[in-house]
Amino acid sequence: MSGKYLEDFSPGQTYRSGSVRIDAERIKNFAAEFDPQPFHQDDEAARRSIFGGLAASGWHTAAVSMRLLIESDLQPVGGIVGAGFDEFRWPLPVRPGDELYIEGEVLEVRPSKSRPTQGIIKVRTTTRNGKGEAVQVSVGNLVVPRRPVL
Amino acid sequence: MSGKYLEDFSPGQTYRSGSVRIDAERIKNFAAEFDPQPFHQDDEAARRSIFGGLAASGWHTAAVSMRLLIESDLQPVGGIVGAGFDEFRWPLPVRPGDELYIEGEVLEVRPSKSRPTQGIIKVRTTTRNGKGEAVQVSVGNLVVPRRPVL
Repeated sequence: MSGKYLEDFSPGQTYRSGSVRIDAERIKNFAAEFDPQPFHQDDEAARRSIFGGLAASGWHTAAVSMRLLIESDLQPVGGIVGAGFDEFRWPLPVRPGDELYIEGEVLEVRPSKSRPTQGIIKVRTTTRNGKGEAVQVSVGNLVVPRRPVL
Repeated sequence: MSGKYLEDFSPGQTYRSGSVRIDAERIKNFAAEFDPQPFHQDDEAARRSIFGGLAASGWHTAAVSMRLLIESDLQPVGGIVGAGFDEFRWPLPVRPGDELYIEGEVLEVRPSKSRPTQGIIKVRTTTRNGKGEAVQVSVGNLVVPRRPVL
């Protein structure tokens, strides 16, 4: 098992991922399964909508961001296990052809009071497009194992 | 265009969806694309993990919950357009075979100060399994058009 234990994290540490391109076809068929609304599926309907053009479902952006987070250099031991979010928003739509990446910062590190083998790190993760604009901002709490006492 | 304008919503209104069954195959291939961690993909690895058995990615639960919200009787005119969440968490894992449905309540309704044609409704949406247990709880803000003045 590789990766970082709770004791390896501290506030101010940053992490970053590579990038992935979002294409129109996957935007449309993700939406067909999970978010079947015209502005995520049909170019003409999207132009007339609040988005002014085809936009990825926010849940598609969220799912892609999870993939990027796993592949980033955050790397908690035991994987990325989310307990929930204090903040979660999509400031701008994701468009076909956008190259997304994530960057983030560790905000807090605290051992669990009730579970001596684990703790929580609070992280702010921002998903950005090729222009560097934020398309998703989250402040989430991840469960991270403590280093075993030998 | 059918659906409810901002003026049709008021705090205390409730909404509910039908249900959908989550199967092991879709849990695993959703994870393969977006959340490739052992506890979402491999039964044996999942048994040894913090989840104690195969569990859906939280983003799979979130995406399915979006589908259920669209199909619920909430029905804002212009569709479900999320501005972000004040709260978002997964109290329990989703397991293969779980039948999920959502139920929710309108908490607040407020016209936008800067955009006279729209407003925001704040809604608490809970996704439940067949036993009625909450597997996802969110408090989100949706953009809803105001009724046009003729």
